[in-house]
Amino acid sequence: MARTIQSLERAAAMLRLLAGGERRLGLSDIASSLDLAKGTAHGILRTLQQEGFVEQDAASGRYQLGAELLRLGNSYLDVHELRARALVWTDDLARSSGESVYLGVLHQQGVLIVHHVFRPDDSRQVLEVGAMQPLHSTALGKVLSAYDPVAHSEAVEGEREAFTARTRTDLEAFEGVLDLTRARGWAADVEETWEGVASVAAPIHDRRRMPVGAVGITGAVERVQRDGDLRPDIIAAVRDCARAVSRDLGAQRF
Amino acid sequence: MARTIQSLERAAAMLRLLAGGERRLGLSDIASSLDLAKGTAHGILRTLQQEGFVEQDAASGRYQLGAELLRLGNSYLDVHELRARALVWTDDLARSSGESVYLGVLHQQGVLIVHHVFRPDDSRQVLEVGAMQPLHSTALGKVLSAYDPVAHSEAVEGEREAFTARTRTDLEAFEGVLDLTRARGWAADVEETWEGVASVAAPIHDRRRMPVGAVGITGAVERVQRDGDLRPDIIAAVRDCARAVSRDLGAQRF
Repeated sequence: MARTIQSLERAAAMLRLLAGGERRLGLSDIASSLDLAKGTAHGILRTLQQEGFVEQDAASGRYQLGAELLRLGNSYLDVHELRARALVWTDDLARSSGESVYLGVLHQQGVLIVHHVFRPDDSRQVLEVGAMQPLHSTALGKVLSAYDPVAHSEAVEGEREAFTARTRTDLEAFEGVLDLTRARGWAADVEETWEGVASVAAPIHDRRRMPVGAVGITGAVERVQRDGDLRPDIIAAVRDCARAVSRDLGAQRF
Repeated sequence: MARTIQSLERAAAMLRLLAGGERRLGLSDIASSLDLAKGTAHGILRTLQQEGFVEQDAASGRYQLGAELLRLGNSYLDVHELRARALVWTDDLARSSGESVYLGVLHQQGVLIVHHVFRPDDSRQVLEVGAMQPLHSTALGKVLSAYDPVAHSEAVEGEREAFTARTRTDLEAFEGVLDLTRARGWAADVEETWEGVASVAAPIHDRRRMPVGAVGITGAVERVQRDGDLRPDIIAAVRDCARAVSRDLGAQRF
């Protein structure tokens, strides 16, 4: 079995460091954060810069992530089979629900958004492809935690932060939510992650019946709920979309 | 001066290899493409996989780009000052022109799209953030080549492929286009890259009067032209947008 390569692990740690928190860091900050000698850190940064993974601000000398990551991230999306299969169906879901649609997959300790269809109105919206959502509080995250054992471990073992007064942080309550999710085949988030925002999501399975992702809508709680309940037509539309994508991936009908 | 690190350079070459052409490659293909021993290639792939930069298909054993690249690419966008400043102005441009808007920066030998506003209609459109456009034939690329000496070298020294019968591949003709671009302050691409598609772009300057990017619209040649000429209202709207973003970046009014 091949060993892993230390300089590569260090380079990855640098990129993660630059992706979080400050985002523009000097050589000394980077070296001390990663417990490296300055010369070692500089050699790695210099190579990352040469390859376009890191850019150095001319004025301040500080480092930040480089453009090559955007190009490679886009290539990742191009090859993403789930996303390719979901494009048409998620467009239809945005149209029928009138809300924005998200497609998410498990990545590290959260949900990585791999596709985002804007709410079909004229409002200004920010694209969230590449953004992460928490596993324990969002509809997408609950679906993944309910169906994917790896996601379940991450959600159970990780910290379940209280984003609002409604977030279920208690383990027993959270497992109860997952049982309900599996029983109903869908999950919801009513102001558990963002005040005023509700979402509904359902699982996507592939030809081997493996849970490969989740799809859902997100919108203002006033629109997604009616008389205090989630709108059944929205739940039905989300589940229809998840089934359609699953079928497209080769999943059996039952 | 610190040396560059060979294993990092090889890892970057692997990611580039997986981003182009086949996109799903076996260990032998990767090793032979990069002229590496299989054991060496495997050690690098294993580390890239552990860090989320590469994923291995369970069924075929082939490697492809990993989700961490998408997350890091999104973080790159978050820290991108030009993009942040341009968000509002490019939305306005899409609305006033009725066409899709692209914001591009020089990256390697082309234009990297860092922001894309969909044409404001109900049509299905594919997001092109992270995609590359050629320097010599697109409006964005001509603007960068006209104003940025590095882009100019890349366009002059690189291969200028004929995408259509209208592409200017001849060096003298291309330099003439750049002279015209500098004289007018904007560039166009009328079916020089894609049949039936025209685009118009203008340069963005920062507080040091450096050309930091280009912004433009792209649309069906039938809409962007009128009676065989580019519509003056569209040219004016593109130039207004480029000036507004430049002002927002601290550029002087004159």
